[in-house]
Amino acid sequence: MQFRTIEWTGDALLLLNQRLLPGRETVRRYSGAEGVAGAIRTMVVRGAPAIGVAAAFGLVLAVQSANRKDRPWRRAFGAAAEMLGGTRPTAVNLFWAIERMRKTASALPDDPAKAARRLEREAVAILEEDLEANRAMGAHGAKLLPANASVLTHCNAGALATAGYGTALGVIRAAVAAGKKIHVYVDETRPLLQGARLTAWELSKDKIQCTLITDNMAAKLLGDGKIDAAIVGADRIARNGDVANKIGTYGVAVLCRVHKVPFYVAAPRSTIDPAIRSGKEIPIEERDGREVTHLMGRRVAPAGVRVYNPSFDVTPARYVSAIVTEKGVLTPPLARGIRALFR
Amino acid sequence: MQFRTIEWTGDALLLLNQRLLPGRETVRRYSGAEGVAGAIRTMVVRGAPAIGVAAAFGLVLAVQSANRKDRPWRRAFGAAAEMLGGTRPTAVNLFWAIERMRKTASALPDDPAKAARRLEREAVAILEEDLEANRAMGAHGAKLLPANASVLTHCNAGALATAGYGTALGVIRAAVAAGKKIHVYVDETRPLLQGARLTAWELSKDKIQCTLITDNMAAKLLGDGKIDAAIVGADRIARNGDVANKIGTYGVAVLCRVHKVPFYVAAPRSTIDPAIRSGKEIPIEERDGREVTHLMGRRVAPAGVRVYNPSFDVTPARYVSAIVTEKGVLTPPLARGIRALFR
Repeated sequence: MQFRTIEWTGDALLLLNQRLLPGRETVRRYSGAEGVAGAIRTMVVRGAPAIGVAAAFGLVLAVQSANRKDRPWRRAFGAAAEMLGGTRPTAVNLFWAIERMRKTASALPDDPAKAARRLEREAVAILEEDLEANRAMGAHGAKLLPANASVLTHCNAGALATAGYGTALGVIRAAVAAGKKIHVYVDETRPLLQGARLTAWELSKDKIQCTLITDNMAAKLLGDGKIDAAIVGADRIARNGDVANKIGTYGVAVLCRVHKVPFYVAAPRSTIDPAIRSGKEIPIEERDGREVTHLMGRRVAPAGVRVYNPSFDVTPARYVSAIVTEKGVLTPPLARGIRALFR
Repeated sequence: MQFRTIEWTGDALLLLNQRLLPGRETVRRYSGAEGVAGAIRTMVVRGAPAIGVAAAFGLVLAVQSANRKDRPWRRAFGAAAEMLGGTRPTAVNLFWAIERMRKTASALPDDPAKAARRLEREAVAILEEDLEANRAMGAHGAKLLPANASVLTHCNAGALATAGYGTALGVIRAAVAAGKKIHVYVDETRPLLQGARLTAWELSKDKIQCTLITDNMAAKLLGDGKIDAAIVGADRIARNGDVANKIGTYGVAVLCRVHKVPFYVAAPRSTIDPAIRSGKEIPIEERDGREVTHLMGRRVAPAGVRVYNPSFDVTPARYVSAIVTEKGVLTPPLARGIRALFR
């Protein structure tokens, strides 16, 4: 990797500012939980695994700050957990990471210095396990891709969406590393263009062949027989295998089915929400309509136009050919594989 | 209509500059064929019927200019026909209009003033017939839409794409005029955003309820059962009913089929190319990759990234529920209806 999405210094969190990519590569430094919450909300950092990792460090920063001011660390932790949990509703990794940190905290003695150190170790573990999970997903998933393949991806499920290496792009990286000839078609992914800005940038850095398209071109490529597989990440997966992911994913999945092209999802176990029966229960974030009506800060649609701007959609399990996890590849029936994963 | 897409003054063609909408409503004046060709190429005027009308007047301007300079009008006409025919390859209305003008020209005496007057009358007839065809399509097509309907549309097949009133939007206008409650979901239509910039603007002017979405949101709306019908225009229809239209149309059609939602095409007879057996023979324009990599003149994708930018796709006839023409509604088998139309 020629860049670090998330870096921990011991008393600050460094985040590559993804709002400014690919034009400018700048790193922002956060020394408090409020800053980290803002970074998640405004998408300085984004991607389900990455925001889980960032939130974990946000909690560490909250406790470190409380200690410096001689304030009770448990109260600071609780307040930060609530604030961080309120930033974005769909990706479950955020809640999973906060919950894991909360469990660690509840077992700790009151000693503030010890608590801070132990929580820091836990956050570092979350980061390192995510990296490891991505490498494992890569190894498992690479086998799914043909030796010579054009692969469609949507949004960014890469190193930038995780602690590093990536979920869907991790699978692609592993396939390329294994000597496969992979050409990636990158959906630009409106409205925030994570495909054009982030995925194309990541792949170019790694010299992985790619072609950028607008989202509405994927159907033509599928119809023309130019796509061998699609692979995307996930923000939350329900117990039955329904997948919430960036808006547009559902359309890709349906179009893959119609054109008999496999549609794969790569996500760590932490993205699966065993508490949720189906995708119907996944809260879908709606964001400001200005993301659609404005480009580069300038209005492109008529003033006052109504906008619908859901950030995610849900792909029913029946459209998912397989879910690549760090524990192996789950194939239909996905519900059974998910049950086994949580046994 | 509170605006004129195309206006003829007798010695100049006035075009509403669609590149600047909705931010600025400016009219450009053209007094020569070169200017009109440039306007078509750069999409000051766009939409299959509109570019046909514009090209017809471009030929009139070429003859008028030749007459002013005492040059042979037939040579000027031929050169202008070639130039105008080379502007954009997909929409057949362009070639249809040029061919109709050429037939008129070939039957004319050499007298330059008489020729100019007769060609002007023909161009005006093309414009007026297009307007009339749109009104007729509206009357025929309005019956297809339920009394209370959410209708998805892609790109701009409105007054701005025609001499006025519109094809797909003409059908919506007629349904609204007939007292139906229509809510239009407008695909923004990347890369050039004809939906966000033009369709939303047109509908807002006419106070027709609409909601703007990014192209990749249509699948979610269809999956959520929020769309009752889709209607689009066309750039060229083959003899078998295959429809070339703005990139993204094919995806909309397939998604409509999967979700059991009717997918309608509205287009005048001049958009049907009886010389072409199937959509495979329709030339698909590819435009500059900068349309995808740059927004408002600023680069959003990494430098040097490869881009695929086809402006159109082809929807096979089997996905088309009906074609609304000025002569009536063609239902499957479309090939039979088209045959009857040209008998």
